[in-house]
Amino acid sequence: MKVTVQGRSRHFRTVTYDSATNEVRLIEQRLLPHEFKVIGTKDFRQTARAITDMVVRGAGAIGATAAYGLAQGAMSFRGRDMAGFKRHARTVYDTLKAARPTAVDPVNAMNQVMRIMCKGQTVEEKQSLAVAAAEEFANEDVTHCESIGRHGADLIKNGMNLLTHCNAGWLAFVDVGSATAPIYEAQRLGRKFHVYCDETRPRCQGGTLTAWELAQQGVSHQVIADNAAGLLFERGEIDLVILGSDRTLGRTGEVANKIGTYTKAVLAHRHNVPFYVAIPLSTIDWELKSGRDIPIEQRSESEVLGAWGVLKNGCREYVRVANPSSTAFNPGFDVTPPELVTGIITPAGIFAPGELWKNREALK
Amino acid sequence: MKVTVQGRSRHFRTVTYDSATNEVRLIEQRLLPHEFKVIGTKDFRQTARAITDMVVRGAGAIGATAAYGLAQGAMSFRGRDMAGFKRHARTVYDTLKAARPTAVDPVNAMNQVMRIMCKGQTVEEKQSLAVAAAEEFANEDVTHCESIGRHGADLIKNGMNLLTHCNAGWLAFVDVGSATAPIYEAQRLGRKFHVYCDETRPRCQGGTLTAWELAQQGVSHQVIADNAAGLLFERGEIDLVILGSDRTLGRTGEVANKIGTYTKAVLAHRHNVPFYVAIPLSTIDWELKSGRDIPIEQRSESEVLGAWGVLKNGCREYVRVANPSSTAFNPGFDVTPPELVTGIITPAGIFAPGELWKNREALK
Repeated sequence: MKVTVQGRSRHFRTVTYDSATNEVRLIEQRLLPHEFKVIGTKDFRQTARAITDMVVRGAGAIGATAAYGLAQGAMSFRGRDMAGFKRHARTVYDTLKAARPTAVDPVNAMNQVMRIMCKGQTVEEKQSLAVAAAEEFANEDVTHCESIGRHGADLIKNGMNLLTHCNAGWLAFVDVGSATAPIYEAQRLGRKFHVYCDETRPRCQGGTLTAWELAQQGVSHQVIADNAAGLLFERGEIDLVILGSDRTLGRTGEVANKIGTYTKAVLAHRHNVPFYVAIPLSTIDWELKSGRDIPIEQRSESEVLGAWGVLKNGCREYVRVANPSSTAFNPGFDVTPPELVTGIITPAGIFAPGELWKNREALK
Repeated sequence: MKVTVQGRSRHFRTVTYDSATNEVRLIEQRLLPHEFKVIGTKDFRQTARAITDMVVRGAGAIGATAAYGLAQGAMSFRGRDMAGFKRHARTVYDTLKAARPTAVDPVNAMNQVMRIMCKGQTVEEKQSLAVAAAEEFANEDVTHCESIGRHGADLIKNGMNLLTHCNAGWLAFVDVGSATAPIYEAQRLGRKFHVYCDETRPRCQGGTLTAWELAQQGVSHQVIADNAAGLLFERGEIDLVILGSDRTLGRTGEVANKIGTYTKAVLAHRHNVPFYVAIPLSTIDWELKSGRDIPIEQRSESEVLGAWGVLKNGCREYVRVANPSSTAFNPGFDVTPPELVTGIITPAGIFAPGELWKNREALK
């Protein structure tokens, strides 16, 4: 999407590959929203470290980063020894897989690259196939998000106020994003609307990343404390909720997403406001039978007990906010039942949560 | 309530009067929860400034501070000239009234002191009546909170998990608090329970003040992001909600309180969890006919866009968290309709919100 750098608006993806230097180029997301910088990783180990250290985050973005990292690793092999190349490729694969061990996207992405790379007869052929496959994976991620945008944009009418939660924006993918895709498409179509961004404590991805994204695209928006959404619903000042999902159960339509999503769904339901979840197909879990079986990650207490931000002098610092002798309970996400979800916006169209299973052949 | 200072647990009120030095002594609440300090104001102008600068905050606490400030001002008058004393007393009254112009508590408190002071025949008599009346006002505030505690404590059973929002604790009153009164009384009775404190963005009074209070009293508690309450309700891990109110409408039972209260009420209702509001009678508004007529204060955007806290080196600093080019919408409170409120805990007993009006003679 567009980013204004030194007064000039340019198009960026979160992750790209530079074949001239064999570098994976990443937006350094830990500096956002206070600084915009693109970094290049010199080899697959640096790429893996960038995933581990959350230079890049978000399902689609880390998938593409792993795909490119595998291609980068393949390209760095010198010589024609096929057995040596295979051993090397396995090392690259394992290193990138270990970078974020619980994430499925890097593995899926690398498996797709591996399948195509296999078809090469020589080391050189395998190397170029790996690069082509990684590019294809990244391009597909963009195409999927664009499809979400086309399907979802019709929900956004002139004069509407939207609510979104956390960041399911282009920074979490290669480009465009999932929850933001309908927003960017509606804006491209010239519609006028306003977006309220939940700040999304404790990590504040709404106030930092989503607000930054919307500001860069010139979308009218304001940040709100998560507590303020209730007042807006009650006053009839929210017309539509769109947000993302980490995992949606194909069998039940239950939606696991950032902590606080369930609360917004309950409010939307009470006020008859449509509540949409925008997702790529890769996040649908066709195995789990119940939302109760989704493990809820318990995250560091320090996230709740303080905040990261920037001092007047520009230094990024953590401040302890809460009482020093208190502890915190910090679940990372919650599960929203299907009866609170109006529709799931996918690249293949919009489905009621209860319709995912019967459409599973089309959605897999 | 108890505060541990240098390893020793001692009892404090938020505001007291020292007749030996004619000082009003206040807990410097702006330093909490990171530092505990009691300051003394030397004259009524300093006392007024302490109210303006929020050294002391909360309805009951600023009422008592104004009452003591008026007595302090009266005591500082030298001589026996009655006309001069009356002019002086008027200056003191006006100065303290102007310290927080929209608050009703300082005015109500000072009117009570004025009424009693009138009965004095000499300057000296008026001076001692003023001090006695201010002490009486402060003691009444404590008595009212203790009554709230006795009525509310029965709601808290062994093994319960409670949720509270913002700070309606003893720091907002002279002692004991409103929402915290049943908690402290239940603890005194030996009941075992756990309190989840909403951090209460944007000003985080739950994570700072309430958590500090509960820690000092040894009440089992954890701070949660406001977003996390939904998950706890959904898992059946909240048995009771108790919080305060800035203004409760006697005619309708509508409850105006810190932003986010409405959201918690909606969640409690969905999960059939009792939702109680604890208030002194002085906060019941018998005039307003509809919650729609309650003006919603719009507060500074900077509260939402960042956070105050303490750096590793102990310095208190503001960090900007949100995207630098974004703005915020920051309403200070919201209004909860009576159908979401199980009961109003008052010093005169517990009432359903719809029963306030018919009991108005007893409650006024």
